[in-house]
Amino acid sequence: MNAEIIAVGTELLLGQIVNTNAQFLAQELASLGMGVYYHTVVGDNLQRLVQAFQQAWERSQVVILTGGLGPTTDDITRDGVALALHRPLGFHEDVWQEIVGQMWRTNRPIPENNRRQAMVPQGATVLPNPRGTAPGLAIAEGDHLAVLLPGPPREMQPMFVDYVRPLLLERIGHGVILSRSLRVIGIGESALEEQIADLIAAQSNPTIAMYASLGELQIRITAKAEDEAVAQGLIAPIEAAIRQRIGSAIYGVDADTLPGVLGQLLKERGYQIALAESCTGGLLGSMITDVPGSSEYFGAGYITYSNHAKHSMLGVPLELIAKHGAVSAACAEAMAAGARRASGADVGIAITGIAGPDGGTAEKPVGTVYIAVVAPEGALVEKLALRGERAAIRARSAKTAMNLARLLLLGEKGSF
Amino acid sequence: MNAEIIAVGTELLLGQIVNTNAQFLAQELASLGMGVYYHTVVGDNLQRLVQAFQQAWERSQVVILTGGLGPTTDDITRDGVALALHRPLGFHEDVWQEIVGQMWRTNRPIPENNRRQAMVPQGATVLPNPRGTAPGLAIAEGDHLAVLLPGPPREMQPMFVDYVRPLLLERIGHGVILSRSLRVIGIGESALEEQIADLIAAQSNPTIAMYASLGELQIRITAKAEDEAVAQGLIAPIEAAIRQRIGSAIYGVDADTLPGVLGQLLKERGYQIALAESCTGGLLGSMITDVPGSSEYFGAGYITYSNHAKHSMLGVPLELIAKHGAVSAACAEAMAAGARRASGADVGIAITGIAGPDGGTAEKPVGTVYIAVVAPEGALVEKLALRGERAAIRARSAKTAMNLARLLLLGEKGSF
Repeated sequence: MNAEIIAVGTELLLGQIVNTNAQFLAQELASLGMGVYYHTVVGDNLQRLVQAFQQAWERSQVVILTGGLGPTTDDITRDGVALALHRPLGFHEDVWQEIVGQMWRTNRPIPENNRRQAMVPQGATVLPNPRGTAPGLAIAEGDHLAVLLPGPPREMQPMFVDYVRPLLLERIGHGVILSRSLRVIGIGESALEEQIADLIAAQSNPTIAMYASLGELQIRITAKAEDEAVAQGLIAPIEAAIRQRIGSAIYGVDADTLPGVLGQLLKERGYQIALAESCTGGLLGSMITDVPGSSEYFGAGYITYSNHAKHSMLGVPLELIAKHGAVSAACAEAMAAGARRASGADVGIAITGIAGPDGGTAEKPVGTVYIAVVAPEGALVEKLALRGERAAIRARSAKTAMNLARLLLLGEKGSF
Repeated sequence: MNAEIIAVGTELLLGQIVNTNAQFLAQELASLGMGVYYHTVVGDNLQRLVQAFQQAWERSQVVILTGGLGPTTDDITRDGVALALHRPLGFHEDVWQEIVGQMWRTNRPIPENNRRQAMVPQGATVLPNPRGTAPGLAIAEGDHLAVLLPGPPREMQPMFVDYVRPLLLERIGHGVILSRSLRVIGIGESALEEQIADLIAAQSNPTIAMYASLGELQIRITAKAEDEAVAQGLIAPIEAAIRQRIGSAIYGVDADTLPGVLGQLLKERGYQIALAESCTGGLLGSMITDVPGSSEYFGAGYITYSNHAKHSMLGVPLELIAKHGAVSAACAEAMAAGARRASGADVGIAITGIAGPDGGTAEKPVGTVYIAVVAPEGALVEKLALRGERAAIRARSAKTAMNLARLLLLGEKGSF
């Protein structure tokens, strides 16, 4: 069963707000296993809304519209759908009393133009809105269903979950859609695709899809089946095959995050971690402490942006910096060791590099970054040659540092 | 002149990411005075992309597509537009050399499938992409223009500004559209709207629009005129009127950023700044060092997440923490003073608070944050009561800390 999403509102067309309703509904519809092939945004214009709705109605069984149900004359979703489906609007006294009751409870005056919100297309079902004055509407015609939801997410989302999702489940019949995401780092998008292209091509159930974002990749395996156990049975061998090929590049699954996974490893080992950051300037600490409860394994970080700070806070010898430079393997190692020593932590991570746009040389161009990790398991230092802008270089440096610490703790990398 | 926006990507249809590209482009097109009546999202499906493009091409003079320009076989935007416009794709050696050069510079292997990115529809102009391997494309046909941009915002946005905006300005013809953005912090969206609602309502040229994002606001004044001087003359009195009303809440204009503005103030005064961060865990340092050249005024930061670190790194007395708690005005003051003392900096900023989701109490609920700033100009400590999730509380804390330091240096706030 296919669905599509139409958001109505000139404020969206002007970019004054971002269409998060489409994202919410898309996720919900995907979790129901419904195919969604189009999202559309149209403004508060009756003719264009009617055309967009008619087109959607022809190509999809379910059309969900958000926005344009307010009391003012530029709220035209109700009128547009009624027009497109040739269903006259009628005033419903019970809906009006509901609206009046709600405004009365919140001590608001009752403007006459709110009466528009009690107009209901013939044969439509009214979906209650306890969080606002705009009721939702559902109109069924054979195997087609049009759903009109209010625009504010805090009204739209509960209305979808409480009323629309059950309506859709009823139409879909039983069966489940199950997804599993593998979270990948340390391998490029093209290289990953080459590694698993044959698996992607060979599958239709489960399907395999790849997504990239800021130095990380996600592989999503999605199965349709009559129940959850069968769906899991379809996913498991695919996951195993992918794991066999890219092994430890998979750092987690589903909602796992890199700082969360590293934190878990630290907790399991009872380790404290300390950070020494130069070019990332606190970004690694910020990511590590994004995780609630990170105080269990993180107590201290040293942002040593200047050479003086590297020396005075971490005990990096000034002669070492003079000889090798602050962006060097030797300095990174000394920083990591210094952070561990100064804080008494078990694990030390250090990052020093040239994030740009200035400061690069022929020998050490912008994007040259050294990462060192010292831990009871051993130590490693790696040189990265990153590209992109300052922000990307910093973000990739911090993520790579966490990944290298993860691999070291797992015994997958590094030793003296 | 009408434009419309098509975003290509199954990850959008599935709701895995939100279509922020549409918002960016919509704002840009609106600022150029172009009418935008539709945004569309389609998946990585050639047939549906071709149909969506053809429909857009019929009803709008400018069609801007984002996404689907990557190296993998499900990146189909190039192929789809070439097909729709009956322009065969040809391999361009110079484009390929550019891609190869970029991968070579970053020591990455060069997968064969990246060659797809060097395929160019006949007659298309190639738009360089210094931030990624996917070049953009522009195809002009009479008064129609198709523009293909990469999906990642950090590649797409500068490509639009550098190459597409000038192309559009050329087509719009003479006359200019000039925008000026006032960057605002420390005042809520509703409060700001109340302050300037009459100005917004009274204006049609220039127009005044407000945008909110993560604890900051932007007021954008846009004028149309026959030349730049006239446009500036229209904007100036509006800007002056707004400044008279909200004064020092305006921290900058246009591309100014809060860390950039604070950095400028520090440079002008020849000050060094040091940071002491607890609940933000390095986020403030990360923001301060987002600014290229920040090493001129920033050398050292202390991420003192644990009480032990507050004591050993910053000299905060353990008795003080025992008496007032780590989340207290006294602790924030001691941290800021300690960071200044330990580093020898002129200005110290400290943040300590409860970012949640756990750790709140009746007396100090989640969102309770203390910020202290000490400087030659004086000192201040402020208690914040923030709402929202962990990430929002942390981001607002860091931004508020920079704003308080700015106001203290300007003599607008704080004293002994």
